[in-house]
Amino acid sequence: MDLATVIGIVLSFGLVVAAILTGSSLMVFISVPSALIVLGGTIGAALVNYPLSYVIGVIGVIKNTFFSNLDTPASVIDKFKDYANRARREGILSLEPLLKEIDDDYMRKGLQLTVDGLEPQTIQEIMETEISYLQERHETGADVVAVLGTLAPAMGMIGTVIGLVQMLQTMSDPSTIGPAMAVALLTTLYGAILANLVFNPMSGKLKTRSKEEVLIREMILEGILAISKGENPRIIEEKLNSFLPPKDRVTDQP
Amino acid sequence: MDLATVIGIVLSFGLVVAAILTGSSLMVFISVPSALIVLGGTIGAALVNYPLSYVIGVIGVIKNTFFSNLDTPASVIDKFKDYANRARREGILSLEPLLKEIDDDYMRKGLQLTVDGLEPQTIQEIMETEISYLQERHETGADVVAVLGTLAPAMGMIGTVIGLVQMLQTMSDPSTIGPAMAVALLTTLYGAILANLVFNPMSGKLKTRSKEEVLIREMILEGILAISKGENPRIIEEKLNSFLPPKDRVTDQP
Amino acid sequence: MDLATVIGIVLSFGLVVAAILTGSSLMVFISVPSALIVLGGTIGAALVNYPLSYVIGVIGVIKNTFFSNLDTPASVIDKFKDYANRARREGILSLEPLLKEIDDDYMRKGLQLTVDGLEPQTIQEIMETEISYLQERHETGADVVAVLGTLAPAMGMIGTVIGLVQMLQTMSDPSTIGPAMAVALLTTLYGAILANLVFNPMSGKLKTRSKEEVLIREMILEGILAISKGENPRIIEEKLNSFLPPKDRVTDQP
Amino acid sequence: MDLATVIGIVLSFGLVVAAILTGSSLMVFISVPSALIVLGGTIGAALVNYPLSYVIGVIGVIKNTFFSNLDTPASVIDKFKDYANRARREGILSLEPLLKEIDDDYMRKGLQLTVDGLEPQTIQEIMETEISYLQERHETGADVVAVLGTLAPAMGMIGTVIGLVQMLQTMSDPSTIGPAMAVALLTTLYGAILANLVFNPMSGKLKTRSKEEVLIREMILEGILAISKGENPRIIEEKLNSFLPPKDRVTDQP
Amino acid sequence: MDLATVIGIVLSFGLVVAAILTGSSLMVFISVPSALIVLGGTIGAALVNYPLSYVIGVIGVIKNTFFSNLDTPASVIDKFKDYANRARREGILSLEPLLKEIDDDYMRKGLQLTVDGLEPQTIQEIMETEISYLQERHETGADVVAVLGTLAPAMGMIGTVIGLVQMLQTMSDPSTIGPAMAVALLTTLYGAILANLVFNPMSGKLKTRSKEEVLIREMILEGILAISKGENPRIIEEKLNSFLPPKDRVTDQP
Repeated sequence: MDLATVIGIVLSFGLVVAAILTGSSLMVFISVPSALIVLGGTIGAALVNYPLSYVIGVIGVIKNTFFSNLDTPASVIDKFKDYANRARREGILSLEPLLKEIDDDYMRKGLQLTVDGLEPQTIQEIMETEISYLQERHETGADVVAVLGTLAPAMGMIGTVIGLVQMLQTMSDPSTIGPAMAVALLTTLYGAILANLVFNPMSGKLKTRSKEEVLIREMILEGILAISKGENPRIIEEKLNSFLPPKDRVTDQP
Repeated sequence: MDLATVIGIVLSFGLVVAAILTGSSLMVFISVPSALIVLGGTIGAALVNYPLSYVIGVIGVIKNTFFSNLDTPASVIDKFKDYANRARREGILSLEPLLKEIDDDYMRKGLQLTVDGLEPQTIQEIMETEISYLQERHETGADVVAVLGTLAPAMGMIGTVIGLVQMLQTMSDPSTIGPAMAVALLTTLYGAILANLVFNPMSGKLKTRSKEEVLIREMILEGILAISKGENPRIIEEKLNSFLPPKDRVTDQP
Repeated sequence: MDLATVIGIVLSFGLVVAAILTGSSLMVFISVPSALIVLGGTIGAALVNYPLSYVIGVIGVIKNTFFSNLDTPASVIDKFKDYANRARREGILSLEPLLKEIDDDYMRKGLQLTVDGLEPQTIQEIMETEISYLQERHETGADVVAVLGTLAPAMGMIGTVIGLVQMLQTMSDPSTIGPAMAVALLTTLYGAILANLVFNPMSGKLKTRSKEEVLIREMILEGILAISKGENPRIIEEKLNSFLPPKDRVTDQP
Repeated sequence: MDLATVIGIVLSFGLVVAAILTGSSLMVFISVPSALIVLGGTIGAALVNYPLSYVIGVIGVIKNTFFSNLDTPASVIDKFKDYANRARREGILSLEPLLKEIDDDYMRKGLQLTVDGLEPQTIQEIMETEISYLQERHETGADVVAVLGTLAPAMGMIGTVIGLVQMLQTMSDPSTIGPAMAVALLTTLYGAILANLVFNPMSGKLKTRSKEEVLIREMILEGILAISKGENPRIIEEKLNSFLPPKDRVTDQP
Repeated sequence: MDLATVIGIVLSFGLVVAAILTGSSLMVFISVPSALIVLGGTIGAALVNYPLSYVIGVIGVIKNTFFSNLDTPASVIDKFKDYANRARREGILSLEPLLKEIDDDYMRKGLQLTVDGLEPQTIQEIMETEISYLQERHETGADVVAVLGTLAPAMGMIGTVIGLVQMLQTMSDPSTIGPAMAVALLTTLYGAILANLVFNPMSGKLKTRSKEEVLIREMILEGILAISKGENPRIIEEKLNSFLPPKDRVTDQP
């Protein structure tokens, strides 16, 4: 559960509502047609921009900004110290019985290839291809949300221009100008809120998550290659620690 | 057929029209001269920006946002498992009779070079050059449409400034100001709609399509190189699967 | 002759003039001082931005957007098939008499180095340095024009702010406000037109041209290296064809 | 202590306050609700954009823009000349007793690995991984602050639009329009000040600091590799000097 | 002396002054407080953005946009043809007496290392490090000026919003609105002029200069490596010429 996403949305929307309530009723700011044109138009343009499956998939992608269950780097280092020691003492085949207990698909596949005796270079090729396409898929997910974040204010601006044109056409009664323009501005407001409080920050969180997941995978790859080359467990620990800031490193000193 | 493009355009334009109709007649928003300056000016500037053949080619490029007929990754993996097994059992020349049944030009050319006995490295050079220039051509196609997407709002803004200058020059009768400015704003509206509902999202879809096609070609290249190096069919399957998300992978388990 | 540039400029300027004439006389939009500050200020800032020779050179660069005389890829492939066959049959020295008939400096220099018996790797180094600095010079040319395209609207905006300040200072007579603001907006209009109809698209065409020329040079380099390594003419043809889209390839089939 | 950050903030905020006081009382520009929506909304959106620990960590990151205690490049060169001479004369193991006097974690770890007799290539891998992930963590820190710098004006704009809508709805009494719009503009002002005087420049300083730290680390890595390869102390000096501008180089000439 | 910078600044500022004088007195546009907030605020924010030494160093950096004394590429080629011939005929040590006559630090250091008999690869490493950090320092210099170019309009906008708020608060007397808003717009004007006529173009010139200097250094490096490998003088000439456009090349033909 990513509390930050929940707290952030509650905090920023709460403040926007509070800012509104200090000056007027909330009803003044609610307009179903304005919401329809901004949100619907954004989704429409997103469907032109991406295949259907990507736009539908965005719901799952956004869900990812609320949940997260990655291994910690420290637990990855601990596991590899254990595997490396075991492989050193009892041979690489001794890792085989452990495979089915490993939850992480990527780690299990890598160790399986190692136990199967593939060349380190072949393992590296396969596992790096996997990381680089994982990265590309993550990027696409974050990009879909970022595109929503550029379309929403554009739709808001289109809605406001439509409202302005209608207001200017019928400017005979000056007393209606103010309220008409107020309504026209609502789409701009909706677009700005959707983009800046929802889509852009969510796209940012997806990118941050992707970096963290890729870091974990690169540590796993480094560890697997080191094991398949039969490297010294202490060197493996040094290698994996070098991915981390000094304060997060795993050391044997008590 | 890419339904998303059709649905997206219908949805977003429908909502724009609906938003207009809630406040006025649609006729207020139709102005042939405004449409001419925005669309014509955009095309004119695009002709300065690109050679004639690129601008004419944009029609074909846009058609690509409505249609698509790529192989699925799964069928590519299936084919290569078949080829790899056959090449293992009966030798690489046994692939020759299959060549003429292959629809995909790229895959057929690659297998032809393999059957002809070229070095894997030479095959890789030729096939990678082909991918990288395909990518460049795709990029150019998407760029032409993206340039249309930056020119349209610029032309809209130029049209609005022209209208504003004319309105300001003849401001003697205040009652004409509103409608004159309304007309002046129409080019801004047209530019924003063309850019945000048509050109920019279409350029986005072309980029997404290009990535999907390049992914397929990179899988084909990986497969062909593996066959030409005589690699184990299981390793080939692992290699090709590593391009895909876990849920799309091809496995032999039932 | 690049017809597109001419047609594009005529079309877009024609439409702007037509848009003006539907609402007022053209004279309203002509202001020599406004033109002077936008164009002169743009040139002044460009002189701060680039050495004198670059700014003077921009005239020649812009001329390049109207003319073009590159070899076609197909003729490059034909020539190399011919050279490769000749080199195969009669030895590489048999190419020497052809050298003085070659128009293209780059191709002649490359073949000269080949005939002189330099190592393929040395030829590659020299010829790649040449391509990469050609590319850099092209980029600089396109960048100078692009900088003009960012300076022009900035000067337009400066001119408009100056006009606004003057209008606001002397707002005693309301009837003069409109025309004064109309004049102030002219520099914005000039800046937007110069940038969007002239400089930005011309910079775009220079980049497109550069890509086409670099493609030709990379094909020539590939061909020369293949000849200097004594490769099979059919392989050379395959290699050069891989730079092109399937429909532009040269094949021997009738 | 980074005096520039302190002087800069005092100078720019002082001038803003002075600019206000020449025209009105400061109280006109103080609005707690406006400050709340801009700052609170920015923090809220940042929490959606980054995990909780990053947003909390930003306080420590901002503190880094006020303090700095890096080794100077000259002292790094001096140390390595000393180490290199010692390693040459008395063997690499003679560096071991020095290790515990070294403050810098990175340098100590590198020398430790050298004294332990690891291959230069393994040392390079470990130490480069450490630099590249340090760089990534620095970048993330600067990015969090930069995102605050894009969110603040967005929140300011949202606050202003809310104020505008409320003003336009109740435009019956013209005398209230001015002050209401003045208040609405305050959030825009707060957003612009936060972004341009605080967040963006701080993000810039973090990037500059990161470059300086990475430079020092790259010099240390170069020095350690040279020692582990047993290179000549004069060559090591030349290598390390080549990272610096001529005037900062360390030479033996008096 | 870089005449273009001087001519450019005189021309663009002259045109701005002329544009002002056609409509009003220059005094209307002079406001010391406005200048103070824009320039002072820009410097203040720059001090937050960069360490003190960088901001002070910007004066020296800006001076570089007025002066320049680089070797021409042709003279570099001539020198290397001479050195290469001499090294061929009389051995590489014959270059030693020439070293003290060489003005350029970089060329002298490179030849010194060559005469000292270092491996070409070691020379290349040292000299490339020097180029890449020179490039980074140049980039930082240009970036400092570019950041001034983004801060100035931001400060101008902040000043204008402050003026607007004050004007709107005291809108009781309509006759004061015009002049008050005129004054408020002055900071926007100052910011736009500083950015577009001074800082941005100067940053551009620094980048152009850096490219020219790096080109010269890369030619020198290529020449030194060729000499240290004992390459043929004609090949060296070919290699160095390939950095240049055909019309600037040095040839022996009369």
